[in-house]
Amino acid sequence: MGMKLSELGEFGLIKRISREPQREGVVAGIGDDAAVIKDGEEFILYTTDIIVEDSHFRKEWCPPEKIGRKAMVSNISDIAAMGGIPEYALVSIALRSDTEAEFVGSVYKGMYDVADRYGVDIIGGDTTHGSLMVINVVVTGRTDKEHLTLRSGAKTGDYILVSGPLGGSKAGLELLKMGYREPKGPIEKHLDPGCRMDIARDVAVFASAMIDVSDGLASEVRHICEESGVGAIIERERIPLDRETIKAGKILEMDPYDFALHGGEDYELVFTVPEENLDRVRRYGTVVGRIMDKDMGVMIENGEIMDLKGGYEHFREDRR
Amino acid sequence: MGMKLSELGEFGLIKRISREPQREGVVAGIGDDAAVIKDGEEFILYTTDIIVEDSHFRKEWCPPEKIGRKAMVSNISDIAAMGGIPEYALVSIALRSDTEAEFVGSVYKGMYDVADRYGVDIIGGDTTHGSLMVINVVVTGRTDKEHLTLRSGAKTGDYILVSGPLGGSKAGLELLKMGYREPKGPIEKHLDPGCRMDIARDVAVFASAMIDVSDGLASEVRHICEESGVGAIIERERIPLDRETIKAGKILEMDPYDFALHGGEDYELVFTVPEENLDRVRRYGTVVGRIMDKDMGVMIENGEIMDLKGGYEHFREDRR
Repeated sequence: MGMKLSELGEFGLIKRISREPQREGVVAGIGDDAAVIKDGEEFILYTTDIIVEDSHFRKEWCPPEKIGRKAMVSNISDIAAMGGIPEYALVSIALRSDTEAEFVGSVYKGMYDVADRYGVDIIGGDTTHGSLMVINVVVTGRTDKEHLTLRSGAKTGDYILVSGPLGGSKAGLELLKMGYREPKGPIEKHLDPGCRMDIARDVAVFASAMIDVSDGLASEVRHICEESGVGAIIERERIPLDRETIKAGKILEMDPYDFALHGGEDYELVFTVPEENLDRVRRYGTVVGRIMDKDMGVMIENGEIMDLKGGYEHFREDRR
Repeated sequence: MGMKLSELGEFGLIKRISREPQREGVVAGIGDDAAVIKDGEEFILYTTDIIVEDSHFRKEWCPPEKIGRKAMVSNISDIAAMGGIPEYALVSIALRSDTEAEFVGSVYKGMYDVADRYGVDIIGGDTTHGSLMVINVVVTGRTDKEHLTLRSGAKTGDYILVSGPLGGSKAGLELLKMGYREPKGPIEKHLDPGCRMDIARDVAVFASAMIDVSDGLASEVRHICEESGVGAIIERERIPLDRETIKAGKILEMDPYDFALHGGEDYELVFTVPEENLDRVRRYGTVVGRIMDKDMGVMIENGEIMDLKGGYEHFREDRR
């Protein structure tokens, strides 16, 4: 028998199904937050996220409006991470035939609220039936050469910054799974995350690489290193955590730095900047490490120095 | 308690969740085969289809490569129906963790084969886990003013044509459901349909409105009438059927015209042309009816004249 996805893992699968694009206009394809297509002097961005009931959200924890909000904001966050301005969305949704119309209306209300906030038009989609609820959102965006920021631009010596406290979303998920309904901060971060459109375009001008935190800091830093052909070192103690995430760690007897490194869905930005730009971006983030030569690997300093492993990966386990 | 989707129906739901777009560039949004965005002198097209295991395909009937082929071709057919040239695709897929990597490879092989044939690059997507298999495909396209063909352009007196025999896909589905494995023609049409990119651009120059047959001729004609603000009459006996579809009707003791009118997934084109263009498009199709004034309604002539009802609609029943 052949290999199962649980052995191959998400990133192994992506490697196996990816191919070199044929068309000339493709600047970045599979392997960045969004695909990038040249359109005259500008670039069109395309990103998509699919979420499945019970694997990515549970109706008993999450009101329908928040399911819709999160499905939309996670895509807008990807456009932000490219230095882009979001423009249009396509929403595909599969629903059971016995779903209440009001429930679906609330899901769409959540999507429209977030779309309106960021100037996004929902211009199309597909509605169908299925034995469980699935939502696929595509968001398109646009950017120019000055703002376009790929994962692949990090250089040895660049500083690595994160735009805000991490680990809150994962802390919230773990609280929910254990039946806790507070502290409320992390739970809200899990059910109704924001994104950093507010600073992304300003950071993009100075950043050499950028990515949003969807799978945990460890995973995002490794993505940047892989795409840029570099190594990195992260100083664990410098990773920003908020007070309630630390509190959640105590309640759950879990290490809040693990939430930050291996949790994901925080939708903060991780970005790298050359030393000469550091002072221009300090107010947008916290330095957590530096880019190294490739042969140094990707490491974490925590009293001792070790390989930076982990980060959330689909198929490997069913954590959500 | 509120209304369920099984009462509201797919088209009722779409009305409820649609809103007027805010951005200036939106030429057509929800309600056509693809969304249309103005981009300089040209138009960018966006279409998407979501399919869910056991609701839209069954692994025991359909080899993985054909699942992939159909997921891709149904979207390319939507771009064809707008008079566009397909360019890029985004593929989101949810899979069980115990899926064989080889199975997924075959699904993608099917998608890439069809994408290659029509010059489409798969530039991005999302892979995730879920308790059943879901595929969402987005295809973008491009067209110009001469070729752009909406559902909304039909005028009283226009002829209604279809580009080829209908009902084969539905005949194939009914054969499969009853355990038959032949006649092979309709079964292949259901499992591995083509699309009419080969003629769509040529027809587009002369057509006043165009749509592809995804939900059955009745449904497609009613969509054109609704978007164009007109009525129509279809002559049932003129609807082209192929020999094997007629044979399937005999085997199943079902009316093959019902397959054509209410089945769907044939991915032929339905288009309307003004009388002065009729001779230019005769070789691309068969005349099946004419556009009428709106107050005449949407009718079918079959010995007697009656309202044209039906067509496949999600949520109303679980037929597939």
